[in-house]
Amino acid sequence: MSTSVSPLAPKSYPEMPALRGVRMATAAAGIKYKNRTDVLLMVFDQPAAVAGVFTRSKCPSAPVDFCRGNLPRGEARAVVVNSGNANAFTGAKGRAATQLTAQSAAAAVGCSEDQVYLASTGVIGEPLDATKFAGVLGDMHVQAQPGFWQEAAKAIMTTDTYPKVATRSTEIGGVPVTINGIAKGAGMIAPDMATMLSFVVTDADIDAAVLQALLSAGVEPTFNSMTVDSDTSTSDTLMLFATGATAADGQDRVTTADDPRLAGFRAALNDLLKDLALQVVRDGEGARKMVEITVTGAETDQAAKRIALSIANSPLVKTAVAGEDANWGRIVMAVGKAGEMADRDRLAIWFGDVRVAVDGERDPHYSEAAATAVMQQEDIPVRVDLGLGDGSATVWTCDLTKEYVAINGDYRS
Amino acid sequence: MSTSVSPLAPKSYPEMPALRGVRMATAAAGIKYKNRTDVLLMVFDQPAAVAGVFTRSKCPSAPVDFCRGNLPRGEARAVVVNSGNANAFTGAKGRAATQLTAQSAAAAVGCSEDQVYLASTGVIGEPLDATKFAGVLGDMHVQAQPGFWQEAAKAIMTTDTYPKVATRSTEIGGVPVTINGIAKGAGMIAPDMATMLSFVVTDADIDAAVLQALLSAGVEPTFNSMTVDSDTSTSDTLMLFATGATAADGQDRVTTADDPRLAGFRAALNDLLKDLALQVVRDGEGARKMVEITVTGAETDQAAKRIALSIANSPLVKTAVAGEDANWGRIVMAVGKAGEMADRDRLAIWFGDVRVAVDGERDPHYSEAAATAVMQQEDIPVRVDLGLGDGSATVWTCDLTKEYVAINGDYRS
Repeated sequence: MSTSVSPLAPKSYPEMPALRGVRMATAAAGIKYKNRTDVLLMVFDQPAAVAGVFTRSKCPSAPVDFCRGNLPRGEARAVVVNSGNANAFTGAKGRAATQLTAQSAAAAVGCSEDQVYLASTGVIGEPLDATKFAGVLGDMHVQAQPGFWQEAAKAIMTTDTYPKVATRSTEIGGVPVTINGIAKGAGMIAPDMATMLSFVVTDADIDAAVLQALLSAGVEPTFNSMTVDSDTSTSDTLMLFATGATAADGQDRVTTADDPRLAGFRAALNDLLKDLALQVVRDGEGARKMVEITVTGAETDQAAKRIALSIANSPLVKTAVAGEDANWGRIVMAVGKAGEMADRDRLAIWFGDVRVAVDGERDPHYSEAAATAVMQQEDIPVRVDLGLGDGSATVWTCDLTKEYVAINGDYRS
Repeated sequence: MSTSVSPLAPKSYPEMPALRGVRMATAAAGIKYKNRTDVLLMVFDQPAAVAGVFTRSKCPSAPVDFCRGNLPRGEARAVVVNSGNANAFTGAKGRAATQLTAQSAAAAVGCSEDQVYLASTGVIGEPLDATKFAGVLGDMHVQAQPGFWQEAAKAIMTTDTYPKVATRSTEIGGVPVTINGIAKGAGMIAPDMATMLSFVVTDADIDAAVLQALLSAGVEPTFNSMTVDSDTSTSDTLMLFATGATAADGQDRVTTADDPRLAGFRAALNDLLKDLALQVVRDGEGARKMVEITVTGAETDQAAKRIALSIANSPLVKTAVAGEDANWGRIVMAVGKAGEMADRDRLAIWFGDVRVAVDGERDPHYSEAAATAVMQQEDIPVRVDLGLGDGSATVWTCDLTKEYVAINGDYRS
């Protein structure tokens, strides 16, 4: 397991501004290991509007089921996130554990269970002893403080090599609004799988239904456009909370998704989601390079995305990137296998600004040296134009290295 | 690039029986390297009925296009297979190269160009100098001999670590019939992609249309049910030829696909295709283990297959296999991400005969030692039952090791 920070980690971390309406605390509850911080509690003293997007896995974890059950109410007073145990594939015991965790949180915070949200990451298939939460949540509720963003991001790390935070400032109707977010993912606990968790909070006053529309649209070109190894976890969770504190500053509540006042907020939210999503990709196991794949000229945006993901998930493309090999032949292969309409004789491919293929064959001015120079960068842009239509999409991934194999295969459960 | 024979290679090679109606020769034409055997010529002195199945890639190679163009005629007199250059993504020059190769073969063999079939494997995107064939095909046609199966299999190898041959004996209407096959694949030439080529010949007297029906049905549970790394090449080619020599023994020509006399032949052909397909999987880059994944209880056979391929193509499952880790949690994840109907609470999972999960959670009698013992085998059976219906499928794959990454990323083009 890698213990050094990813070479692709951000060079500096932002100062996280205060955000009214939320308090946080962390604790060591001994979920899996003693003396390891493994629980995060977020408290909204006034109910926050809430939206969520979860894994599409047909085998979702018990916490994912639990959150989906509460989302129709659209109100959050507490979020409990634990590492050490994903409470996934745990059957009836897993459901009981979520119920008990919610009861403990509701009792500690003074709310109802349908105002509680849960997320878990860690071991699969081991029952989660939810009685451990009861021992810490009461104190955590008392001690929870505003700020604490870096600590919260650290608390939810598993084998992430760095905590992931992001912040954006924007406005609604001229009233300043803040959005803060934390994420974890692409790190792995042996023998489990990458789980992507992200929690974003804003002080804006926005209805839950509007939040959901913003989040569902915002997740597509961000978290849903990145892949480390194509292995979608049972537990992926992205949640957005609005505390409404800016109502006190004169921000009138936003109640419809097409409110023109949302333009700045929407852009800032999407930019923050992209920031966090790229931080997750950059922490991919064994990653030393990040690849941005843009497909243009497809029949539809959806086709462009499928082709982009076919390239991003190709082991042969990813190992070539690891080897700094400007191997456009494998890009051709990945376009061809995607199953979407593609005219081989119209394909054009660029690494960075270096066009390596055009009209279905190698570029007549192809320069191996120029293409290789691009491959030696840490951030590698790849573009494919299909020449068929207007569909386009951008996805991000990382290279496939021996360290990925070592992290995921070199030890026993 | 690995130079030692795969640890999964067959322990012995079959004696390939004589098969009337076909002659073969190999030569060093200098396609890419001097003094390397890189061309195979198969000659059918009497036209053979022919069927073919090709890559579904949207970017097929020029030889694949060429073969598809001739298939409606259904007659073969010559097959030219070269290594060193895949003649893929070569635009108009690539098409011209196939025309020239076909002309050279037709001239050498004394047939028409639509009776010629071509396959190429090797470098992508480099024009193929087809004039090199003219220099050798004439002599090859004169020297071509019956037998020569092992030599033919060797001639089409690229970075395969062993030649792949298979044979089956069967009968049609009581008349003995032989089926011989060769294949190459899972080996890689840097910087290109795995291309799977296979040529199967029988002395039976069977119409082209019937051959096509047999082949199209036979490829599904065999070559189309194995994956090394999910990267489908531009050039995959599987062809079946029937020389009709057994007509002289009293075998009446088979003219319809539902002819009851075909039962034994169909079974033998499918068994041979499976034999060759498994040999290809066992030669996967860096492979040290072969995994057979069976999914039962799915809604449909198609759903079962998609789920099985989701498991077989999961980097996390494959690295766990490499690490001999009985990681059924990752199997759950791969089932969940397949997108097919699955009821998490009905899933059951076995490694070999060891049931590790049932009714959506870890098996109460789970034995880590027993499961691990299965993972230490070279051939690892994995079974998943979904408990939803009757759909089932079996696919094969190999583990994902550091050597795969080394072979595919450690060198420059």
